[in-house]
Amino acid sequence: MKLNERGLLVVLSGPSGVGKGTVRKALFELEGHDLVYSISMTTRPPRDGEVDGIDYYFVDKATFEAKIENDELLEWAQFVGHYYGTPLDKVEAQLKQGKEVVLEIEVQGALQVREKMSDAVFVFISPPNKEALYRRLLRRGTESTETIKKRMDKAEREFPLAHKYDYIVVNDEVTNAADRILAIIRAEHAKTERSIHKYNEMLEVNKDG
Amino acid sequence: MKLNERGLLVVLSGPSGVGKGTVRKALFELEGHDLVYSISMTTRPPRDGEVDGIDYYFVDKATFEAKIENDELLEWAQFVGHYYGTPLDKVEAQLKQGKEVVLEIEVQGALQVREKMSDAVFVFISPPNKEALYRRLLRRGTESTETIKKRMDKAEREFPLAHKYDYIVVNDEVTNAADRILAIIRAEHAKTERSIHKYNEMLEVNKDG
Repeated sequence: MKLNERGLLVVLSGPSGVGKGTVRKALFELEGHDLVYSISMTTRPPRDGEVDGIDYYFVDKATFEAKIENDELLEWAQFVGHYYGTPLDKVEAQLKQGKEVVLEIEVQGALQVREKMSDAVFVFISPPNKEALYRRLLRRGTESTETIKKRMDKAEREFPLAHKYDYIVVNDEVTNAADRILAIIRAEHAKTERSIHKYNEMLEVNKDG
Repeated sequence: MKLNERGLLVVLSGPSGVGKGTVRKALFELEGHDLVYSISMTTRPPRDGEVDGIDYYFVDKATFEAKIENDELLEWAQFVGHYYGTPLDKVEAQLKQGKEVVLEIEVQGALQVREKMSDAVFVFISPPNKEALYRRLLRRGTESTETIKKRMDKAEREFPLAHKYDYIVVNDEVTNAADRILAIIRAEHAKTERSIHKYNEMLEVNKDG
């Protein structure tokens, strides 16, 4: 029995190359949860096979900029001339249904979310050491040495931001990391600050008494 | 990989009759943990078959009172003319070994522990509703109506203290409750405040840089 029935917004983030996507996939493959993935909004045109409302919400620039203007995005960024962001209303609707909404985003985006949704759960995914992260960046093999160097520099700037998160989960073994994130979600629901209201109702606790 | 290697002191508590002992037993039967049960100290004489250092630490009154005097007990109480308490040094030694020390105690004792060990994890075990608790108290069948009435009154006074705990876990189904407590323990280890020191070492984060 879950006292807190509202879903949690779970922000998975971490340095460039740590394997956020792999951990997120492993998390969704675990049993015993009600996780949904937050779909981003973008102004970039759909690629072959991409479906609006499944891969992304595809919108035009004016629509996106109006959303920025009206503070309707949880976080947003520009990347190679296109906007990417998380629509607040979609996230809210899912949270109300009791779903755990998982956002897998860059460190800068996560810090934006923190300002808007203070009751979200912020998980920093960490490599077990620097070498593991460097090896992972090199292993991809699709990027130029210069790009890899840039990503390493970015990671170095992101390492010291871990202290701004609620939890640090080491991605030494992907299923371990996913298990731990699921434990965090379960524990967060049991937190007194999230569950005391329902508890007081349930046991007819008179707070003035 | 666990960033916080020190064990946690986990205080399981809750209103009289909620089934703390049953939940604690179910918790110990789960896999994937390093839980130990904290052994109490008492001045009551050993019963047949009870072993010193296993069931209790049996001591005389002067020894116990010296421990109270020297602030060497995490919590203590008097019950039917005998002292009962939790020796601080034993708990500390186990925490240093990375063991999760589980204390299953009454609400008043738990609030004493809170004052001495602010980094302990406090779990309030709640009945799913008042009727469930009353039925459980009556089901024992070993106590007089007057005793049961007293325990119900005690529970009523304990219900409003849940807000002083870190987590509230509903004991609707004992293995569910135990699972959730194990998730809490795993999540607590991943908390940034417990793991940032080791993280900074691991990734050579220069806090002044």
